[in-house]
Amino acid sequence: MDRDLAAVSLPGRVAGPGEGISPEELALAARNHGMPLEALRYRLTPPGLHYVLVHYDIPAAEAADWRIGVGGLVRTPLRLTLADLRSYPSVTLRVTMECAGNGRARLTPRPVSQPWLVEAVGTAEWTGVPLRTLLREARVESGAVEAVFTGADHGVERGVEQDYRRSLPLGVAVGDDPEVLVAYAMNGGPLPPQHGHPVRLVVPGWYGMAQVKWLCDITLTDTPFTGFQQSVAYRYRQSADEPGEPVTRIAPRALMIPPGFPDFMSRTRVLRPGRTGLEGRAWSGHAPVVRVEVSSDDGRTWHDAALDVPEGGGWAWRHWHTAWTATPGSHVLVTRATDADGRTQPLDQPWNRGGFGNNLVQRIPVVCLPDGT
Amino acid sequence: MDRDLAAVSLPGRVAGPGEGISPEELALAARNHGMPLEALRYRLTPPGLHYVLVHYDIPAAEAADWRIGVGGLVRTPLRLTLADLRSYPSVTLRVTMECAGNGRARLTPRPVSQPWLVEAVGTAEWTGVPLRTLLREARVESGAVEAVFTGADHGVERGVEQDYRRSLPLGVAVGDDPEVLVAYAMNGGPLPPQHGHPVRLVVPGWYGMAQVKWLCDITLTDTPFTGFQQSVAYRYRQSADEPGEPVTRIAPRALMIPPGFPDFMSRTRVLRPGRTGLEGRAWSGHAPVVRVEVSSDDGRTWHDAALDVPEGGGWAWRHWHTAWTATPGSHVLVTRATDADGRTQPLDQPWNRGGFGNNLVQRIPVVCLPDGT
Repeated sequence: MDRDLAAVSLPGRVAGPGEGISPEELALAARNHGMPLEALRYRLTPPGLHYVLVHYDIPAAEAADWRIGVGGLVRTPLRLTLADLRSYPSVTLRVTMECAGNGRARLTPRPVSQPWLVEAVGTAEWTGVPLRTLLREARVESGAVEAVFTGADHGVERGVEQDYRRSLPLGVAVGDDPEVLVAYAMNGGPLPPQHGHPVRLVVPGWYGMAQVKWLCDITLTDTPFTGFQQSVAYRYRQSADEPGEPVTRIAPRALMIPPGFPDFMSRTRVLRPGRTGLEGRAWSGHAPVVRVEVSSDDGRTWHDAALDVPEGGGWAWRHWHTAWTATPGSHVLVTRATDADGRTQPLDQPWNRGGFGNNLVQRIPVVCLPDGT
Repeated sequence: MDRDLAAVSLPGRVAGPGEGISPEELALAARNHGMPLEALRYRLTPPGLHYVLVHYDIPAAEAADWRIGVGGLVRTPLRLTLADLRSYPSVTLRVTMECAGNGRARLTPRPVSQPWLVEAVGTAEWTGVPLRTLLREARVESGAVEAVFTGADHGVERGVEQDYRRSLPLGVAVGDDPEVLVAYAMNGGPLPPQHGHPVRLVVPGWYGMAQVKWLCDITLTDTPFTGFQQSVAYRYRQSADEPGEPVTRIAPRALMIPPGFPDFMSRTRVLRPGRTGLEGRAWSGHAPVVRVEVSSDDGRTWHDAALDVPEGGGWAWRHWHTAWTATPGSHVLVTRATDADGRTQPLDQPWNRGGFGNNLVQRIPVVCLPDGT
């Protein structure tokens, strides 16, 4: 690698004890953004509030010029315009999407990367063509084992120059549960630039790294893909030198709309004594959420929140609510989701070197003011 | 102040030598977001890419229920629905908006607050009723000296519980240069929640703190407003105990679309040898931008960029372009705007305790790879 490039594209690292957020992490945090937690009030996340993570730059992509190739181990290679895509029967799915690195900046020690706290989530309705429709038309050959998806965003990561590229096992790519979409609309309109304009992949139930944006190529291969984003990044590992396990589906998580009002700088919540509604949403990429618990004493005791009837299909978050009687003093509210597979959120951090799939429970410090203030 | 509240709503402070970004600053950076600099390619910033700064929470505001009061020193108090507002002749203005704290996190020492680098900017077309139309209808009394604007966002800041509130001198409020708008549309659609849905103030040429969102009240007063956001925050000060000067109009700034492609983590730009176009946009809230200079050697030598014909009126950024022949090695690109009043961007930081109005030039480190790589 070029010496100048080596100096600016460093290996992954973990922050030292007490090391504050670095200028590089801040530069990522200023570009990418989470969903302000009060936006949990919206069933569908309004434009600009859905979380965004862009590895490199948002490409300058024009819908009129866009082509999507389907090639490799297929009998009928395709080269599709956006009009071609729109000519197929479409499917609309409501999908809660979350970044695999959500929660990373709360870990000790902290993996140095995009420093998410808990808000890298959002829910949208995505419209597109089922991937299996396109693969059927392209007539996948029998030796194919994976589909590799290439996005148009280009950059360097840990010394490796690359287009953003990820694969799915063939069984997932041609399956219908989840129904994988080649999507061209978000909440009924064209995709915004930062969400993959004009076309992206949507893999319901999987973390964001699978949802390749600015999708320009689909290639069927007879060997598993070993590119950077598959075999170097997005692996659960304890140390840098082990192969690790791939990051795939979203672990369960519940989030609460922080009650009361915030202090500008500390973001601590302030409220007044009395009964106050608590509500939020919960999701899992493995199975439906069947239980949400809430604690108002930092996890010492718990009670069950009421779960509203699921709406929008199996891939969207589920609304929950309960109430709490606030008394003067400091409290810590905690919430925890459990899914139908029995997966639940840990109370202690499940550390891994990339800071992936971390679904440690949300903790909301609250100050309740004295009566009459 | 309540002891628990005092513990979480601290006075303003400046970071110590070498102190990294704190968890509190990160929490603000994860909620609020800048404009990814490649979005300088868009004349009008697409939804979700325009910078956002919310002091407290985004209020749950319904357009159907919204009322805007105009009161205080007026002969005809008004109470307007959104339909009332839409019944007045409307004006649409293209406005480049910038946060007064843009650049704060690059300062040494660093004021601890929302940690912007250089990207807290965006340009939109705002549609609404000129404020002077409403004030004429309300018949402002002769003793009035200021108009005070109240937003619906509520929180605590430095120990002071408040609705977000700012004033304008009467001369600015009833003036037509800039034309102050009570705006209900952004780029032709309803305001998104984070941009003030359903109604906000737009004060072209002024920093963001004047553009009160979720606007619910306008009160004319016979004394200057001394609320928190006017006399405590948003002042140019060297030390905490001086009254300081008010932050008002936007200082000139040019930004460049970072050329080449980025390293994911360091955000350093990488490109290959040869001629490359450089372009960006520049603005000033004082007077039109008349010059943009570019340096490819970290400010030792400069050349003038070409300024495109201004478009979209006097309050929108102006596009500029030039070219550069990249040679292998490390370089630092710099750009600097000058306006018709002779204001220009400093090469050394103009420090103040709040980190306001900082228009230090942008510096873009670039690595040009060797030929043939």
